[in-house]
Amino acid sequence: MASSMKLMLFSALILLSFQAVFSVTPLQFQHPLDPLTKEEISLVQTIVQKKYPTSSNRLSFHYIGLDEPEKNAILQWESIKPRIITVPRKALAITIINSITHEIVIDLKARRIVSDNIHNGNGFPTLSVDEQAVAIELPLKYGPFLESVKKRGLNLSEVVCSTFTMGWFGETTNRRTVRVECFMKESSPNIWVRPISGLTIVVDLELMKIIEYHDSGIIPVPTADNTEYRLSHQKPPFGPKQHSLATHQPQGPGFTISGHSVSWANWKFHIGFDARAGIVISLASIYDLEKHKSRRVLYKGYISELFVPYQDPTDDFYYKTFFDAGEFGFGLSTVSLVPNRDCPSNAQFLDTYVHNADGSPLLIKNAICVFEQYGNIMWRHTETGIPNESFAETRTEVNLVVRTVVTVGNYDNIIDWEFKASGSIKPAIALSGILEIKGVDIKHKNEIKSDQHGTLVSANSIGVYHDHFYIYHLDLDIDGVSNSFEKTSLKTVRVTDGSSKRKSYWTTETATAKTENDAKIIIGTSPGELSVVNPNKKTAVGNDVGYRLIPAIPAHPLLTDDDWPQIRGAFTDFNVWVTPYNRTEKWAGGLYVDHSHGDDTLAVWTKKNRDIENKDIVLWHVVGIHHVPAQEDFPIMPLLSTAFELRPTNFFERNPVLKTLSPKDVQWPGCPK
Amino acid sequence: MASSMKLMLFSALILLSFQAVFSVTPLQFQHPLDPLTKEEISLVQTIVQKKYPTSSNRLSFHYIGLDEPEKNAILQWESIKPRIITVPRKALAITIINSITHEIVIDLKARRIVSDNIHNGNGFPTLSVDEQAVAIELPLKYGPFLESVKKRGLNLSEVVCSTFTMGWFGETTNRRTVRVECFMKESSPNIWVRPISGLTIVVDLELMKIIEYHDSGIIPVPTADNTEYRLSHQKPPFGPKQHSLATHQPQGPGFTISGHSVSWANWKFHIGFDARAGIVISLASIYDLEKHKSRRVLYKGYISELFVPYQDPTDDFYYKTFFDAGEFGFGLSTVSLVPNRDCPSNAQFLDTYVHNADGSPLLIKNAICVFEQYGNIMWRHTETGIPNESFAETRTEVNLVVRTVVTVGNYDNIIDWEFKASGSIKPAIALSGILEIKGVDIKHKNEIKSDQHGTLVSANSIGVYHDHFYIYHLDLDIDGVSNSFEKTSLKTVRVTDGSSKRKSYWTTETATAKTENDAKIIIGTSPGELSVVNPNKKTAVGNDVGYRLIPAIPAHPLLTDDDWPQIRGAFTDFNVWVTPYNRTEKWAGGLYVDHSHGDDTLAVWTKKNRDIENKDIVLWHVVGIHHVPAQEDFPIMPLLSTAFELRPTNFFERNPVLKTLSPKDVQWPGCPK
Repeated sequence: MASSMKLMLFSALILLSFQAVFSVTPLQFQHPLDPLTKEEISLVQTIVQKKYPTSSNRLSFHYIGLDEPEKNAILQWESIKPRIITVPRKALAITIINSITHEIVIDLKARRIVSDNIHNGNGFPTLSVDEQAVAIELPLKYGPFLESVKKRGLNLSEVVCSTFTMGWFGETTNRRTVRVECFMKESSPNIWVRPISGLTIVVDLELMKIIEYHDSGIIPVPTADNTEYRLSHQKPPFGPKQHSLATHQPQGPGFTISGHSVSWANWKFHIGFDARAGIVISLASIYDLEKHKSRRVLYKGYISELFVPYQDPTDDFYYKTFFDAGEFGFGLSTVSLVPNRDCPSNAQFLDTYVHNADGSPLLIKNAICVFEQYGNIMWRHTETGIPNESFAETRTEVNLVVRTVVTVGNYDNIIDWEFKASGSIKPAIALSGILEIKGVDIKHKNEIKSDQHGTLVSANSIGVYHDHFYIYHLDLDIDGVSNSFEKTSLKTVRVTDGSSKRKSYWTTETATAKTENDAKIIIGTSPGELSVVNPNKKTAVGNDVGYRLIPAIPAHPLLTDDDWPQIRGAFTDFNVWVTPYNRTEKWAGGLYVDHSHGDDTLAVWTKKNRDIENKDIVLWHVVGIHHVPAQEDFPIMPLLSTAFELRPTNFFERNPVLKTLSPKDVQWPGCPK
Repeated sequence: MASSMKLMLFSALILLSFQAVFSVTPLQFQHPLDPLTKEEISLVQTIVQKKYPTSSNRLSFHYIGLDEPEKNAILQWESIKPRIITVPRKALAITIINSITHEIVIDLKARRIVSDNIHNGNGFPTLSVDEQAVAIELPLKYGPFLESVKKRGLNLSEVVCSTFTMGWFGETTNRRTVRVECFMKESSPNIWVRPISGLTIVVDLELMKIIEYHDSGIIPVPTADNTEYRLSHQKPPFGPKQHSLATHQPQGPGFTISGHSVSWANWKFHIGFDARAGIVISLASIYDLEKHKSRRVLYKGYISELFVPYQDPTDDFYYKTFFDAGEFGFGLSTVSLVPNRDCPSNAQFLDTYVHNADGSPLLIKNAICVFEQYGNIMWRHTETGIPNESFAETRTEVNLVVRTVVTVGNYDNIIDWEFKASGSIKPAIALSGILEIKGVDIKHKNEIKSDQHGTLVSANSIGVYHDHFYIYHLDLDIDGVSNSFEKTSLKTVRVTDGSSKRKSYWTTETATAKTENDAKIIIGTSPGELSVVNPNKKTAVGNDVGYRLIPAIPAHPLLTDDDWPQIRGAFTDFNVWVTPYNRTEKWAGGLYVDHSHGDDTLAVWTKKNRDIENKDIVLWHVVGIHHVPAQEDFPIMPLLSTAFELRPTNFFERNPVLKTLSPKDVQWPGCPK
């Protein structure tokens, strides 16, 4: 959740790029799906400011990104070489101009505004980092807050505040507000575990002032002892000790990055980046050695939303029902990766640009890393059954990982896309960072008399129960655009006719989903397999060419259907959904998810129950973790991970890595004397 | 499934150790849980042969292993240093002497037989490799089989047979029999995908002759084309290409192996090995930097059984309901690991000894490997919320893996035990090797008129549906011997009193299992967490000290409860079971699982519904895969994996790797000119 004061970070970790004057250098990009360049972002700023001069308008940019070309256009562009086809290059800017939300589309080649629509519906755009940086300063000059601080005997100069989105609980008022929560810093930078509890502070972001304030009474701020996690501030003994382990590739990396396009082993794909979605994997195709051609698997994949509802109904926490991607921006919250730490020494890094609230470009250095890693055995067999012909055959596996880290306030989301030469794509999520702590006047579990809605992880510190629900948008194009979704059920068959000594066995029943309702799946209720197939392509022996979803252990929402947060986060109602491709259906919780009313979600779109058979379809997959905090998660949390696999299933005629050579052995060089 | 002709393999990969004369060298072992040494196995052979001279007895050894000391004795031995306490050293030999099964316990120090009991119950011991090697030769000299081969126009010199256990289908006869199935080799060593279908061959292992033979008619043997997988026999083009990736540790490995005891980071544990169980992890303790002491987590962990029921009720397949550990021996089926292929270049290897049917020791070179690997990020946080104090902290993770590979006929099971400095143990299973294929007279899916019980993976080749159910025996000792099993349920609470703007939230309810029935869990039916806690130890804030099971997506059996294989494999009825520690309850499918009647299984033991609260308890966890074969699994299968995690949960006061340093960076050395 919650981000604030990003500006401060960026000043330290990131180069601010000031573009006072419109650049006339070419707006270089190499691929129509490349993220907007620095120059293009500046151009957007210039063009919008020209129409809405800041001298006479309050103008803030809440999103600047590629207005994605039509899929047809991209596929045409990709299929014809040399690439003579030109694809329109447009940007979308979501701005708030004098408190009104505008969706402005700009033709970057023609350098003009194509459309300028006003959003009149519910919900607001992604918060800007800059407005949050202003909002969190407000309490520090607000009389009643100063009194609360004084009453608690706290040192004002050690108070740090942060913004938290408000959620929506049926209100009919329509103000762009945030909650502000404050923390104590003092000797530890771990503010998240040291809340000043009992305060309600609401800021109106348009008025930029505190419009609601309430102090429900003093609750002790947890101590700073044992909350420090920076190495530079730790005292010995250190441990446990780890020996160095270096990865070296004497032949160099097995991948090449050209612009944003990656080639590795039998894979080719494009790495996009978006201020809201963060990393976007597009046009992933795998080379089929037998068919002598590249075959598309994934047109586009990204995390569409992350819903984090906390499970404490009390004043301090009830509203914490975050939509991290839509409210704070996964791209805006992407942090610079630390070489040799966040990614291994053999990684290569990509920078990217997002934007400031004034529309100027903002560089994120090392936003993405790409690396190969030892990936276990690829396949093996020791043959013991043939006289005088014993042997062992093993192929070693090297995998490719594309990684970003999205830090939304306290939590760090490590987002990996792993590719395997055997055809699998394994998207993985790992959580680290810091728990959201509720301050309580309890030092030991035996003092607990009523539900505290979390685990007592340290004295005066409740790690509040919550969920993390990630939803992946997976526009699979299995060997072509027109696909179907197949559910294969495993069914017990009883033998009743005496035809076998067995009394039972299981077999499979495959059904093709005709409409969206057929494809709403709660995983775990019955055994089976879920596949996206191309019904127009068959293998030589007649199987449908497909990819299968191998899920992680699923999490299902536990809020009631009629509860406001669940209405807004209704995309968690099922673990799998399938929709027909629709260029506008990108955000499972809605485009304007801050204060949203749940009227623009995947659950609403699919009520149309559209046809999905033999169509261009999108698979949506919800990956979740119910998080009951443990003391080990305090004061900073070791990785908690989940992953799923998209695995070729009758996509290839046979094992596609049958003829892969294990990479050559490498010896650490001994230098000649 | 099925192993045969192991002898042939061992002659190539393994050094046969002939010990004709009793060795008088000391029977060196260092730890009372060390597997029997070569000399000890020889001693067992000598002592048993002395009582039952082979001149006058038909004597075969089906199991020779450590007769495990009482747990009390081991714990006492371990706790007192210097290790002045001596622990009895005994061996168990399960032998068949003149067709009668004997359980012979030998005191290795006193060099005498302590007990010699006859097994009168149902079921037979693990098959010996040697008797299988004899059985598979029988058809090649059996008239009716030669006729069947001739009738099919097959070349007898290319026929290779293999043994398959018979299962049990309610018969009251009690003969030690195996099915023999034969395959065509010709140009490809991939016999498993080229069965000579339609033949029923039953061998009585005591008579060592074919007692049943039936030829139901000719079904084409699938072609050898495209079944070859050996590199030396592949033709270009090769690919996809992988670049070398070497792991180097300039400080040397971070672990030390002394005898069979491993120290690594904050972990210490013992690697045992057993002819039946294969690898056994014992006495795993983790050093607590804050408490300045080692705290035990796992007394013993191993795979107790692997049940592989095929799902084809027809004559060729109905009986295929294998119990790979008990019928073929996970230890006996452990194969030599190929350095740089099955384990990375920085791995260290351990050899081990099993036994031949004559009781002589048999060396398995490189049976176990131990290595460190890059393990992602350990924990991280980028702080963006504090004015002028932005920073990123990341600790890199190196993990330790202990690996064996068990190849039972066609399938290769890659068995990993991964240890993390953050306290987690992650046992993982990966499957590779070769599908069991049923020959059919079908070349294309559109010729299929009735259920073929599998996937047409190639012309004339059905990859038959089946399951892989592994059951782990996990004798957890969480910070001491007396533990309890806790089920924490996540429950929706409705807000009905208007006390919150929320209409619902979830909270937790923890129940301690009193008896075995309380601890029979089908995972996935309701959200929650499963933990083993030490109710006698609390953290400073009062939480029960514990470890949590984070399961993989579970598989549940689909056979009916009254079906014979399911009665025998009833340990799959639940994903989790908890029993009080009982030295004799080691094999979830029973000690004598070949032809077993299901009267000695975990499901039977737990009918006593014994107390398990605050007792020495064993957690049993079933990990499963329903396997619907795909063409990619043919002719050899890329790894299909599953894993679970035992994760400290309020075991430590806080993050136990808070004060870990990331390992030092390493540069590939440049040699001075």
